[in-house]
Amino acid sequence: MFYKKGYSAFQFRLKVVWTMLAALVTVCSVQAQELSSPNGNLQLEFKLQEGGVPSYTLTYKNKQVISPSRLGLELNNLPSFMDGFEIIDTQENSVNDSWSPVWGKQSTIENNYNELLVTLSQKEHNNRYIRIKFRLFDDGLGFRYEFPKQEELNYFVLKEEHTEFNLTGDHKIFWIPGDYDTNEYPYMTSTISEIPGLMEEATVQITAQRPIDNLAVQTPSMMKSSDGIYINIHEAALVNYPAMNLNVDAENFHFSTHLTPDAVGNKGYLQTETFSPWRTVVVSDKATDIVASNLILNLNEPTSYEDTSWITPLKYIGIWWEYFVEGKSTWAYGTETNVKLDQDFNELTPSGRHGATTAHAKDYVDFAAKHGIDAVLIEGWNIGWEDWIGNWKEEVFDFTTPYPDFDVEEVRDYAASKGVRIMMHHETSGAATNYERRLDRAFQFMKDNNYNSVKTGYVGQIIPRGEHHDGQWMVNHYIHVANRAADYEIMINSHEAVRPTGLHRTYPNWLAQESARGTEFEAMGGLDPDHSTILPFTRLMGGPMDYTPGIFQTDLSYYGSGNQRVNTTLVKQLAYYVTMYSPLQMAADLKENYERFPDAFQFIKDVAVDWDDSYYLEAEPGDYLTVARKAKNKNEWYVGGITDENARTSTISFDFLPPGETYIATIYADGKDASWNEKPQSYNIRKVRVTSKSKLKQQLAPGGGFAVSIKEGTKEEMKGLKRL
Amino acid sequence: MFYKKGYSAFQFRLKVVWTMLAALVTVCSVQAQELSSPNGNLQLEFKLQEGGVPSYTLTYKNKQVISPSRLGLELNNLPSFMDGFEIIDTQENSVNDSWSPVWGKQSTIENNYNELLVTLSQKEHNNRYIRIKFRLFDDGLGFRYEFPKQEELNYFVLKEEHTEFNLTGDHKIFWIPGDYDTNEYPYMTSTISEIPGLMEEATVQITAQRPIDNLAVQTPSMMKSSDGIYINIHEAALVNYPAMNLNVDAENFHFSTHLTPDAVGNKGYLQTETFSPWRTVVVSDKATDIVASNLILNLNEPTSYEDTSWITPLKYIGIWWEYFVEGKSTWAYGTETNVKLDQDFNELTPSGRHGATTAHAKDYVDFAAKHGIDAVLIEGWNIGWEDWIGNWKEEVFDFTTPYPDFDVEEVRDYAASKGVRIMMHHETSGAATNYERRLDRAFQFMKDNNYNSVKTGYVGQIIPRGEHHDGQWMVNHYIHVANRAADYEIMINSHEAVRPTGLHRTYPNWLAQESARGTEFEAMGGLDPDHSTILPFTRLMGGPMDYTPGIFQTDLSYYGSGNQRVNTTLVKQLAYYVTMYSPLQMAADLKENYERFPDAFQFIKDVAVDWDDSYYLEAEPGDYLTVARKAKNKNEWYVGGITDENARTSTISFDFLPPGETYIATIYADGKDASWNEKPQSYNIRKVRVTSKSKLKQQLAPGGGFAVSIKEGTKEEMKGLKRL
Repeated sequence: MFYKKGYSAFQFRLKVVWTMLAALVTVCSVQAQELSSPNGNLQLEFKLQEGGVPSYTLTYKNKQVISPSRLGLELNNLPSFMDGFEIIDTQENSVNDSWSPVWGKQSTIENNYNELLVTLSQKEHNNRYIRIKFRLFDDGLGFRYEFPKQEELNYFVLKEEHTEFNLTGDHKIFWIPGDYDTNEYPYMTSTISEIPGLMEEATVQITAQRPIDNLAVQTPSMMKSSDGIYINIHEAALVNYPAMNLNVDAENFHFSTHLTPDAVGNKGYLQTETFSPWRTVVVSDKATDIVASNLILNLNEPTSYEDTSWITPLKYIGIWWEYFVEGKSTWAYGTETNVKLDQDFNELTPSGRHGATTAHAKDYVDFAAKHGIDAVLIEGWNIGWEDWIGNWKEEVFDFTTPYPDFDVEEVRDYAASKGVRIMMHHETSGAATNYERRLDRAFQFMKDNNYNSVKTGYVGQIIPRGEHHDGQWMVNHYIHVANRAADYEIMINSHEAVRPTGLHRTYPNWLAQESARGTEFEAMGGLDPDHSTILPFTRLMGGPMDYTPGIFQTDLSYYGSGNQRVNTTLVKQLAYYVTMYSPLQMAADLKENYERFPDAFQFIKDVAVDWDDSYYLEAEPGDYLTVARKAKNKNEWYVGGITDENARTSTISFDFLPPGETYIATIYADGKDASWNEKPQSYNIRKVRVTSKSKLKQQLAPGGGFAVSIKEGTKEEMKGLKRL
Repeated sequence: MFYKKGYSAFQFRLKVVWTMLAALVTVCSVQAQELSSPNGNLQLEFKLQEGGVPSYTLTYKNKQVISPSRLGLELNNLPSFMDGFEIIDTQENSVNDSWSPVWGKQSTIENNYNELLVTLSQKEHNNRYIRIKFRLFDDGLGFRYEFPKQEELNYFVLKEEHTEFNLTGDHKIFWIPGDYDTNEYPYMTSTISEIPGLMEEATVQITAQRPIDNLAVQTPSMMKSSDGIYINIHEAALVNYPAMNLNVDAENFHFSTHLTPDAVGNKGYLQTETFSPWRTVVVSDKATDIVASNLILNLNEPTSYEDTSWITPLKYIGIWWEYFVEGKSTWAYGTETNVKLDQDFNELTPSGRHGATTAHAKDYVDFAAKHGIDAVLIEGWNIGWEDWIGNWKEEVFDFTTPYPDFDVEEVRDYAASKGVRIMMHHETSGAATNYERRLDRAFQFMKDNNYNSVKTGYVGQIIPRGEHHDGQWMVNHYIHVANRAADYEIMINSHEAVRPTGLHRTYPNWLAQESARGTEFEAMGGLDPDHSTILPFTRLMGGPMDYTPGIFQTDLSYYGSGNQRVNTTLVKQLAYYVTMYSPLQMAADLKENYERFPDAFQFIKDVAVDWDDSYYLEAEPGDYLTVARKAKNKNEWYVGGITDENARTSTISFDFLPPGETYIATIYADGKDASWNEKPQSYNIRKVRVTSKSKLKQQLAPGGGFAVSIKEGTKEEMKGLKRL
């Protein structure tokens, strides 16, 4: 038999190893295996504790970052992988190469690590064996469990993974509550020991949430030790496995994996050969190293797509923000609250406030064409919005039938004539089964109507009922959608999906995700001014976010009643296009508001969405972030700086510019009297000449930011401009 | 608002009713509503018991068949529909018409009933109202709950339906254990009071079963009272609702509905306007009336398919039985037991016993072409069979990739050249989600390769995990598959699906189902000789069964070791083509066995699969059944008679033939020395002349049967034939 052959070969090798190791096995199982990062700053120690329990320790510059922590998995249908192990083989390997992503923050990514692969066997279970693979980069550790195909292990069901991350002190931590269904919590900032006392306050109400019963937080989990070491725990390459939360032992500062269960309480159905996702610990004493880290991307598989030329980063506007601005317009066409897909929607009672009309869509196409925006998202174009939420309804959308007042063909042809793309919208209401059974028809409809990108949404309780947004089944669903979309050359922007783990390397048409509290919450209670200074260290560690920045009219009482506001200055919204990395960037405000501030809007029009390189100039999670990026294949640079509720002065050098060249920098700055809650629209714009030797000292308002575009200029254009 | 308008109109009508009824309401709620069947034999009484509890009573020829039984539903998210009702409206209606099915036992079906529609309102819940619709036919009762769209009722979740069927005595009952996942139990014959003592014995082991925790049996439930009244309880038009089992109170002979739960324990997600399936009680003092009943079909909706010309009843052979006959061949190609769809199946280790090879398929095509068989089923043609069962594996089949030794195009072209169709096989292993996401590709593959029918299979635990074969989600799945198949002009033959409820009227491309213990179990322990005399009164009440008869080599030790046998005579297998009604009939044995008995095989070649009319000549559930049918649009009749383990003499009249005409009858009879367990292959065939006045007295062997074909003949052919 095939696998028998494979097994026999391995058995043969084992036999050799065993013969060689003979009496050494006992020694080996207590002897620690050690591994260093390429620059020597990080040290990993792997060893078997008493009883054959695997464990690891991580040290940074001679300080323990992770104290001895156990590794193992509990199974539902078989003996566990928790103990009784012997080390029967170890292999080391070193890699130092680089690769080019289809799109990204850099056009070339270094991949430099030392690897340790440990094979662990359980004598009492017929020498059933697993492997643990450690990769130690200069900026952190990745490790995963590997389950080779073998006679003793073919199919198994996870009861729980018990990987520990034992921290060494009561670190400062940026956290949100553990939850199986949503990542859309506001961040808490506290020490680890303060988490229990804050959990109730942290667990705000969110549609279709399922907070974890025991004390747990989500990843990416960002921490800072009292001696200034930044530690970020997350996972990479989450495929065919449930997402991980972290159980918190707040007394001992110990974390452990808590996987998302399925409908019957199991945590994963695995078939050898297979792997867990990588567990990642990014470590540095510089906060900028954390946001600059490519460790998670490096641990993902290269794409298998043969042709990626159809995948293009893009900027878009949309019929969207108006749905959040009180009284403006609605996704739904009719006033009814009980509709079925097979009824005649022409017979509904129009509310008169339907957003996605043919005429309105054409207005947005005109605006996009005029300002060089690539695409227009139109939400609410399709039937089903009258009762889409809260009913755990399966047949909620069909993804192919427009409302009576939205003419797909007319909008398609009009947009094509203007060189603008329409972005499709597929809200599923959490009914993933309904989406899957209609997916081929939905994608074919997109091809037939010239759509090449789709925003997907998963608001609500999942169907299959009992499954969770972050469980194995849904993890596989999102990947299925990305894969199937690639067959149709369609790009994906998923909302309410499981938070990303670097899979955009493997599925580069999966451009961006939401999976966190984004701009929409500015219209639903507001985001704290420090929220966007935390996200790059948490949610964005896994991949790009469709944060939907660009709100110029931040005081929402402008639209009528209420005192709702977006808690930033106007200029901070500009800075987001650089600090919130994404190959897909929305200009989220109403077009009318951009028309009111054309000079500020110029930055959104100019800013790139794909980059040759990125420079992380200043960073402190929860406080501030300043980033510069070079546009892909262009001599253009963009700088974004943001601060939390505190005013600050950013001091940056332009040494990322090529030496000896002079460029024109346009600096968008908060007005002196600006702040997130008073005069947020006070700003000034100035042009100066800059070189690689230039320095900028820039004041940021409370809740403010600054943005800089740097371009080549003719002598004519440079004339009269001051040197910075 | 639209529904408000509708509601208002109704409210207006209610107001009128209320005004009219005024003080009468109290009277009305204790006064019984009565309804008679068109011939007056059946009487229904509906009334509100104390506390506003709806109830009904059914009387046949002045004897209670169902004593006062409560009606109602319990909800999970809203107050129940159990009590507190007032009758606010009643309507009566009578229908007497007929319709023509696309295919069936008759070309014209009478539909004659009196109807009572009761509107029930709950004052304490803002006058929320439901309706109960009763239809009383001459052969039984159908009733359902109706949930109109109204402000007080849009979405609701079923906790349980509490419909009672209170029987009036300790009837004889043919039953199988209540189960959420399988109908493949052998039948028990006992009294109702004996059920508890027999349940353990009855609950034999079946793949992916989920017996109900409390005492329950399945429907169709066939009973006979001590005074000779036959009562059959089932349901009709099971759509968007879970299948019903019957809780058994064996002391009081009371049954009540027990719906199949979903993954989280709910029993159904409903949105108004909607209906429950019909609950059916077929009643007669003649057993032949039960099998002749069209009540369930009449309660289903007409098809909405515009074109049905592509739907054609058919006879087929297949590469199938050999998989059950020890040592012959296998579905799987490789000897491995751990495979993945994305691996290279060319690299597997061939077992050398793979059944679905190109050459073997062509042999079967040759045989079909030679004998005028419409189609050849080929199971095991596609990758994935190595580990398809028992692993709750989702990505188990892709439905489009053949094994290395099966050339789809070559078989397609060869079959086309011979005028034979290949029947596709889609085993899902219970992974309905995997099937749905691949369904469009699977059906397109069929179209591309000239398949127009598919046998589907659901062996194993369902995915979505936690769902059951008979739950609402899967009920909708089967219908989705049938509907989508119709879009591709594909006919369905589903195995291990929820048992049928007459939906073949609405979805006539859903030709047949298994959903019971069929011939395959003859190779896995055997079926009792009375099994096939029970099925027409139970499983077949809901619709055609792909029973896969036609086993000529009944002693399976013929193939080698073991003492397994098919527990019938050869001739009984012929009779099944008439007694086991289906528009899809397999000749299930190996072609070699038909070549050994060409004279007996002639009956299988001749017998029709679609009919102008059917005549139920003799019947007693569990004992015997004799049926005659007239072939559609042909002057040909076929008669089948079967008995249980007891020999018997069938006495039938040929008065179903047109008077004054003479035909040639070919009578296939058990040999004098034949029985199911000794000399089952002893048979004789004789030709005689028959008219409408002919009578036949035919001996049936223990476990035997007889079959008759009746055709027109030339004088030449008649010459020398005796009169019967």
